[in-house]
Amino acid sequence: MSDTTPPNDLYTLQSWLETPADSDFPLQNIPFGISSGSHHPPRPCTRIGNQVIDLQPLAAAGLLEGLGMDAAAFDAPVLNALMAHGKAGSRALRHRLIQLFRADHGMNDATLRLVQAAVQPLDEVTMHLPVAIGDYTDFYSSREHATNVGIMFRGPENALMPNWLHLPVGYHGRASSIVVSGTPIRRPMGQMRPKADEPPVFGPSKQLDIELETAFITFEGKPLGERIPAAEAADFIFGMVLFNDWSARDIQSWEYVPLGPFLGKNFGSSMSPWVVTLEALEPFRTQGPPQQPEPLPYLRTAGAQAFDIRLEAALKPKNGAESVICTTNFKHLYWNMAQQLAHHTVNGCNVRCGDVMASGTISGPAPDSFGSLLELTWRGTKPLKLQDGSERKFLEDGDTIVIRGHAAHQGLRIGFGEVAGQILPAQ
Amino acid sequence: MSDTTPPNDLYTLQSWLETPADSDFPLQNIPFGISSGSHHPPRPCTRIGNQVIDLQPLAAAGLLEGLGMDAAAFDAPVLNALMAHGKAGSRALRHRLIQLFRADHGMNDATLRLVQAAVQPLDEVTMHLPVAIGDYTDFYSSREHATNVGIMFRGPENALMPNWLHLPVGYHGRASSIVVSGTPIRRPMGQMRPKADEPPVFGPSKQLDIELETAFITFEGKPLGERIPAAEAADFIFGMVLFNDWSARDIQSWEYVPLGPFLGKNFGSSMSPWVVTLEALEPFRTQGPPQQPEPLPYLRTAGAQAFDIRLEAALKPKNGAESVICTTNFKHLYWNMAQQLAHHTVNGCNVRCGDVMASGTISGPAPDSFGSLLELTWRGTKPLKLQDGSERKFLEDGDTIVIRGHAAHQGLRIGFGEVAGQILPAQ
Repeated sequence: MSDTTPPNDLYTLQSWLETPADSDFPLQNIPFGISSGSHHPPRPCTRIGNQVIDLQPLAAAGLLEGLGMDAAAFDAPVLNALMAHGKAGSRALRHRLIQLFRADHGMNDATLRLVQAAVQPLDEVTMHLPVAIGDYTDFYSSREHATNVGIMFRGPENALMPNWLHLPVGYHGRASSIVVSGTPIRRPMGQMRPKADEPPVFGPSKQLDIELETAFITFEGKPLGERIPAAEAADFIFGMVLFNDWSARDIQSWEYVPLGPFLGKNFGSSMSPWVVTLEALEPFRTQGPPQQPEPLPYLRTAGAQAFDIRLEAALKPKNGAESVICTTNFKHLYWNMAQQLAHHTVNGCNVRCGDVMASGTISGPAPDSFGSLLELTWRGTKPLKLQDGSERKFLEDGDTIVIRGHAAHQGLRIGFGEVAGQILPAQ
Repeated sequence: MSDTTPPNDLYTLQSWLETPADSDFPLQNIPFGISSGSHHPPRPCTRIGNQVIDLQPLAAAGLLEGLGMDAAAFDAPVLNALMAHGKAGSRALRHRLIQLFRADHGMNDATLRLVQAAVQPLDEVTMHLPVAIGDYTDFYSSREHATNVGIMFRGPENALMPNWLHLPVGYHGRASSIVVSGTPIRRPMGQMRPKADEPPVFGPSKQLDIELETAFITFEGKPLGERIPAAEAADFIFGMVLFNDWSARDIQSWEYVPLGPFLGKNFGSSMSPWVVTLEALEPFRTQGPPQQPEPLPYLRTAGAQAFDIRLEAALKPKNGAESVICTTNFKHLYWNMAQQLAHHTVNGCNVRCGDVMASGTISGPAPDSFGSLLELTWRGTKPLKLQDGSERKFLEDGDTIVIRGHAAHQGLRIGFGEVAGQILPAQ
């Protein structure tokens, strides 16, 4: 079994496990997640089609030997121990799993039965947050999003701040309140000032919004004081997830000057459960937008640094039909992940295994590609019409938001599944 | 032994361990930290005078039984397991330790020898970061500091932002780069724009600054979605430390619009090694500044919510004499810790065991009580004269900053020791 080279039959590779044609999770994906079932606590798994593969029994059967990972990494409630082996480790594990599940596996019947015993139907497991998150950073890397927000708040002349084209603006978010897809989100209470000439008031947010984002998860970086150059960044990125940075616009707009968003964001952020590795996304690399002015040398990158990942957000009212409210693409982002990581560490800031770095709202150029209700309804001035006839300026109690994403090329589809969350009434 | 009531002879209590008269660490303090020595790895300890007391041997000898803490909590490299027992646990542990080390201990010789075996001279141990930090929040709660910065950047008419008197402004910082006192700090490289009409440049920060702060460390809070009312806040605060929020003003001023400080702060923050419990600080409670306008109901607190803690910062040039550059007091802070924690969780944001919440720069009303070089030199326009005759606008390579703090009342002194860090040249 070759553990270090990608399969050279990428587009034709098939699994002996059933995989629907439109699945985000063919054998070529092999994402990593944490699942629990009736017979086992939360521990690492992967997914093919609608089957979840529990890695602990594979390790116990000796089928994951020779990868340098000890048994404890497969019996942990988060992926961090598995990720401690870095890019080489996760790549070797992924290739071993492809080997075990490819149609031409070459295993004898006894071994095949051991592998089959680790397979569970998706609907019989519960998915959990995949990593213990050290620090969470949110970037602001969509030029279209920053421009839209700038036009609404400062007018078209000063839409982009002077620093925006020179560096990937970012800020620190709250790690404790990041939850896995499916976890309900409670409408936050908070202080806001709806009328600028009157005192602030306290109550439930009336401007609850989404931000359609992706995030990348890091391996252990370099020690405090050292930087990760842009050219090395990919070695420190484990993979990507979908991310919904729920935002209470009324709380945020009152609190954020001068130190940035705080309670308008930290009541909850939602993450999809499957970490799709950079390696699985390699076939979908593409050029990002041209960057003018040319970035400073530490931010320069060569080659295709974007990924062609189709993204959508859908809103499903309580007991209503789902409406797709936004269709966008990861490739629109102005600043790429290598630039984000190089910038984050250029001052010596250390990155740890399991850190999460989100993209910021991913808006495209078309009005139906904007990644937040703030932009889609242009600050509430153009309410969205939904399938069930109702309108939305911002989220209502009972609304569910589902963000989906996948890449597709020459019949090969690699996806993330979804990140979903329903709004509960304020408490 | 009574574990739940504080000693009623607080002011006269003496230890059988030698305690210098001006020590920050009399028997009445009993702070918690993590130390390692030649014979043991990092694990929980306390301190009396200049002696460090290793808790693991006390636990192994059965002297910490009946507190509900298992042996593993005393054999861990961070205090989090010990803190998992909440306020009742740490209070009971502290009282047990006072009982063991008070002059009238009542132990027989054999027991006393067991206790003595756990005592090590301070200079024979290494102190470590006391907790595994989940999330780090920095507030901005000194009215004098916010006003000074506002005057410098926006003029005296608009010095305080409109929200400042209505809520304790705060933002999320970086947990990964918080280091224990004594760890050198490398001058950060970064992007800045020294001339507003020219493109940004990349290089070492030329405006490296300090921020004299304290921080509190939390016990496990309530589940996501629930709030901690101000009246309950003290139950969730383990104790306090000294904190230096090193800041690169040139990087910060270019990057911080509109999402707040990022690389101008996250290259390193320094924390003192001893967590002084709120209980040890109780005798020093005092009234904070009057709050006008009256805060919204969720931010109202009753009684003395400030603490009279004298703070100073000293600058020691490489091979030069130390100069005290700032003398201030924790009681100047406008927003108190109960208000900070109530605000932080009012939207349902969850707080975990080991979270760190810093005060923001603590400036007082007098010019020599300002807690940053930015304010002390009024943006570099009034350089500081040091003891050795040199001047400072901002920090130079080789400079060491030492922040100290203690409370004193009727002969009882409870202190924090110090948080120190030396600036290394940029790399």
